[in-house]
Amino acid sequence: MDNSFPKNNLTNEVFAYWIPRLVADGVDINDILSVHSVATNWPEWSKAWSEIGNRYYLLAKEMQSEGHDISAGETLIRASLAYHCSQIVAFHSQEDKKAMQALKAKTYQKAAPLLAPPLERIEVSFKNHKIPGYLRLPRSLENLAACVLLVPGLDSTKEDFHTIGDICVKRGLACFSFDGPGQGEFRQHLPLAEGYEECIQAIFDAISSHPKIDPLRIGTLGRSLGGYFVMRAAAKNPQIAATVVFGGAFDLEDFSTMPKMIRDGFCYATGGKTDSEARTLMGASSLIDCIDKVKKPVLIVHGKLDAIFNWKQAIKLSNSLPGVSTLVMDDNGVHCCHNNAFQYRTKMIDWLANVLKKDQGL
Amino acid sequence: MDNSFPKNNLTNEVFAYWIPRLVADGVDINDILSVHSVATNWPEWSKAWSEIGNRYYLLAKEMQSEGHDISAGETLIRASLAYHCSQIVAFHSQEDKKAMQALKAKTYQKAAPLLAPPLERIEVSFKNHKIPGYLRLPRSLENLAACVLLVPGLDSTKEDFHTIGDICVKRGLACFSFDGPGQGEFRQHLPLAEGYEECIQAIFDAISSHPKIDPLRIGTLGRSLGGYFVMRAAAKNPQIAATVVFGGAFDLEDFSTMPKMIRDGFCYATGGKTDSEARTLMGASSLIDCIDKVKKPVLIVHGKLDAIFNWKQAIKLSNSLPGVSTLVMDDNGVHCCHNNAFQYRTKMIDWLANVLKKDQGL
Repeated sequence: MDNSFPKNNLTNEVFAYWIPRLVADGVDINDILSVHSVATNWPEWSKAWSEIGNRYYLLAKEMQSEGHDISAGETLIRASLAYHCSQIVAFHSQEDKKAMQALKAKTYQKAAPLLAPPLERIEVSFKNHKIPGYLRLPRSLENLAACVLLVPGLDSTKEDFHTIGDICVKRGLACFSFDGPGQGEFRQHLPLAEGYEECIQAIFDAISSHPKIDPLRIGTLGRSLGGYFVMRAAAKNPQIAATVVFGGAFDLEDFSTMPKMIRDGFCYATGGKTDSEARTLMGASSLIDCIDKVKKPVLIVHGKLDAIFNWKQAIKLSNSLPGVSTLVMDDNGVHCCHNNAFQYRTKMIDWLANVLKKDQGL
Repeated sequence: MDNSFPKNNLTNEVFAYWIPRLVADGVDINDILSVHSVATNWPEWSKAWSEIGNRYYLLAKEMQSEGHDISAGETLIRASLAYHCSQIVAFHSQEDKKAMQALKAKTYQKAAPLLAPPLERIEVSFKNHKIPGYLRLPRSLENLAACVLLVPGLDSTKEDFHTIGDICVKRGLACFSFDGPGQGEFRQHLPLAEGYEECIQAIFDAISSHPKIDPLRIGTLGRSLGGYFVMRAAAKNPQIAATVVFGGAFDLEDFSTMPKMIRDGFCYATGGKTDSEARTLMGASSLIDCIDKVKKPVLIVHGKLDAIFNWKQAIKLSNSLPGVSTLVMDDNGVHCCHNNAFQYRTKMIDWLANVLKKDQGL
């Protein structure tokens, strides 16, 4: 396996894809540039990020000991994101990847109570296990809040939704981010597989009964592969009031031409030993069997330069939802439009705020 | 005048200094990279930024027409920052620089009422003119708020303090940012000159009498050259409860060895036609005459790699304040430690929050 990447070239993978993606999720560009200046391959990248995570962790301890809880919380979020960066490409060592994932989750959990307002950790029962997640409520809460369930993708987790969570709560929406089968903390309990939407249903049921959430105004936002599963969830649960597909897919038709790192991700998440085993474990993986059951509004945001889920996936999805969907295609957008994150993330949350407001008849 | 800059080199000026500085002040790295990919000299950089500003401006209009005021406000802040980037190096055309400055200020003013909470524009009388500024109050306000007066540097303005303002209000501090003599909107009324601290006094008097501000808990934070003037203000006004010098100076001893762009900045702000005329208009520019009058706590944050105000300026300042000052020197820090902005900006505001809390005897 060739772990190297080209250096000092603005058009290389690190700059063209990782800078926008990581910065959009809350990573400091100064840290990315500093890692890029020392790392010549992915294992070195992993190591450099874990060192940045450790530095933020120590800084947070110092801040907390001086009584600066909000700063300590924000610094722990940075530590968690650095551990996230460390593990995200670490397919060269499953052990390292698991250890860094665990550290990322633990560090985020330490940050949660320090933030203002604090994040509420909620564990939802699912198939004899507990799905871990965080509920965030808007500051000014009149009556019950509308809520967005944030559904991660193949190699993303609840922690990488922190900045999207910020956008939600600023606009008066609650949000709940979690790790499902094959993702983050929960991967040790259940692997990724066709049927993931059952966990979205379990979360919908739990969040619907939260005393501060309006069960009639719950939407979902699925990132990347999560965008496929939120559609399945919408087809099975007409109570879901709105769905956003954020760089998602109609099916896995492009599997064999996806970047190697993505197919490695499918192996890691499903537990498959080879690409073909992983693909088999994913089952049919097409919306063809259920898409006609979706009756509530769907927003599809996709980048025409997406190298993981081809833009034609978004067209296929949109065409399967006549009268129900709105398609926003960014001609210059990479996967999930990370290189134009501000515009499209804002658009998605504003759209949800509108639809979920209307749903209540306001 | 050679306006070119080297391309595609991570160690060049754009990457080493401008990326950290602009990102710290709220500019999107995607926009910086996109400008860098097209601009081969400073006039092209200016033009590319003004185009990005126009794009955000139109996007904000669209958001506002759809009823998304918070998003429109945040997008106008981005437009204003893009105009800021456009003018910041535009010494090749004073007319362009002035026009972009005006657009930057006007766009920020349009954003102010849309943000949640909105910024309150306050104009303070000073020498028959009005100093424009914005007051931001923390969301949860019990009794009167402590407040930080944010004093810009040579070529910075109230708009570039937006992210530092965010840090303040999140930690329960109000803040007031403004343009003084030679800066932003106010430059057309009065040039930069020795004696700038009189305007800090006028602002102190106005903010002290605001119904939501505690006059006994007002501090200042001076950025770059503003760090010199907040010290003069502290020497003359013992009511100022705390002072932060953020990449500031004791005197202008290093004037002749400063980067050309900084000396151009002194000419622009003072109205001097040559470096030597600008230096003359700055007067004595040393704290030697007043430093011994400062009795309230001072925090000095400086980068050892500062290419504008040498780190020895910070040592000189600290040594002149025995028992009063705390010096934080970042061994890897450039001017204002922009390349380590999160850590030091957080530290400065946490320090102010602590000192201003203590001052009230809480």
